[in-house]
Amino acid sequence: MELLLLSNSSLPDQPYLQHAVEPIGQQLAGRRKVLFVPFAGVTQSWDAYTDKVRQALSALELDIVGIHTVEDPLAAVQSAEAIMVGGGNTFVLLKQCRERHLLGAIRRRVQQGAPYIGWSAGANLACPSIRTTNDMPIADPGGFDALDLLAWQINPHFTNALPAGHQGETREQRIRELLCVEPALSVIGLPEGNWIQVSGEHAYLAGPNPTWLFRAGQAAQPLPTGLLTLG
Amino acid sequence: MELLLLSNSSLPDQPYLQHAVEPIGQQLAGRRKVLFVPFAGVTQSWDAYTDKVRQALSALELDIVGIHTVEDPLAAVQSAEAIMVGGGNTFVLLKQCRERHLLGAIRRRVQQGAPYIGWSAGANLACPSIRTTNDMPIADPGGFDALDLLAWQINPHFTNALPAGHQGETREQRIRELLCVEPALSVIGLPEGNWIQVSGEHAYLAGPNPTWLFRAGQAAQPLPTGLLTLG
Repeated sequence: MELLLLSNSSLPDQPYLQHAVEPIGQQLAGRRKVLFVPFAGVTQSWDAYTDKVRQALSALELDIVGIHTVEDPLAAVQSAEAIMVGGGNTFVLLKQCRERHLLGAIRRRVQQGAPYIGWSAGANLACPSIRTTNDMPIADPGGFDALDLLAWQINPHFTNALPAGHQGETREQRIRELLCVEPALSVIGLPEGNWIQVSGEHAYLAGPNPTWLFRAGQAAQPLPTGLLTLG
Repeated sequence: MELLLLSNSSLPDQPYLQHAVEPIGQQLAGRRKVLFVPFAGVTQSWDAYTDKVRQALSALELDIVGIHTVEDPLAAVQSAEAIMVGGGNTFVLLKQCRERHLLGAIRRRVQQGAPYIGWSAGANLACPSIRTTNDMPIADPGGFDALDLLAWQINPHFTNALPAGHQGETREQRIRELLCVEPALSVIGLPEGNWIQVSGEHAYLAGPNPTWLFRAGQAAQPLPTGLLTLG
C-alpha cells in the first residue's frame, strides 16, 4: 500500500497545500489522474473545493476529477489510478462515504496499489476509526469505523497548547481518554506541517515539527523523522 | 423545568466547582438529595468522581448518591429529587446513559420538576443533541440525539482563540459547519465561567464572560446576561 497522510493543508503565511505539493508529487510517482473526494467540505461547495485543490496542485499538472461529478462513484473508485481525500469535517466525510458504500471500495483499490493521499479529515479516514478526529460531530456517520488502512490512529493538527487561560482538556488529555477505553491503540500526534508516508511494509515520518506517540500507561514519546518503528 | 447548565467545572486558580457552588445551591432550593451521574468520567473511577463532587459541594450539605452505586438506576431516576450530570467525555456519557435506557427517564423526571444540573458534558447532554460538544469521539454513542431539554445547542468551554500559530478550525468555524448542515439551529457559545439557568418558561444567562449566539446567515451576536430572549 502507498499512503501519504498529511496533518493539514495550510501553514502560516503559505498558500493552500504549498508544503504538500512536493510529497504529493513523489507519492503519485508519475501518475496524472487523481480521483478527489471533497466530501469533508461543508462550508464550500464540492465543485469549489475541487477547483481549489486543482489550482493549489497545478504545478504537478494533474487531471483531478471530483468524485461527486462522476456518474458511477463506485466504478470510479474501482478504476482510480490514485485517490485523494481532502480535509474538512471528518464526520461528514465518513457519513458521505458510508452512504455511497465507498469505504470498502476505496480500501480494496488502495490495497491493489492505488496511492491514497489524505490531509486532515482525509488522514483521519485512513485510520482504523475516526476516534482521533478533532472535529465537531455535526453529523452522525453511522459508526466510527473508517478505512483501516494503517495500524495506528493519527491525531492531525496535533498540539498540546491551549489558548491562554482556557481550562478545557488538552489534546493529550483527550487522547488519554481514548486510551482508557481502548488501551491497545497507538496514537500518533501529528503536528501541522508533518506527514506520514507508507510504502509497502514501511512507514516514514517527515516534517519539521515534533511528533508524539501516545500509548496507554506510557509517557508521550517523541518520534524521530524517518523510518517509523512503533514496535 | 428547572435547569442549570454550566460551561465548565474549573476556573484558573480556583478549586474544582467553586464558582458553581452558589448557583447549584440556588437551583436546588433546599433539596438535599441529589442523584449524580458520573458516566462522563473516563480517566477517573466513577466512585472517585462522585467523591470529588461531594467534597467540592460540601458547603451545601447535600446527600449525593452516584447512580452507578444503586441497584436500579432507572428507579433511582424516576424518584430523584434532583439530577446532577458531571463533565468529562460527552460521547461516553451519552453511550452509558443510552445503554442503561436512562435518557427518556431523565427527560421525564426533569419535566416533572426535578432540577437538572449539568456542567460541560452534562450541559451538552441537556441539548437536543451532542453535536456541539468539543470532545473527542472516543466511543460511538449509537446516535447523537440527547435529552432535548432545551431548544438551543450549547457549546461549552466556548472560546474562539487558537494557540499561537495553529491553523486548525476556530470554534466559530466548527459551529458554522454545523449551521451549514442544520441551518435552523441556534447555538450558544457559552464561555468558561458562565451558565444558563432555565426556570419554567424563562431562561437566564449569568457569568462574567462574553457569550455568543450563532445562527446561520448571521454574524455572531453577543448575548447580554439576564433574561435570554432568543426570539
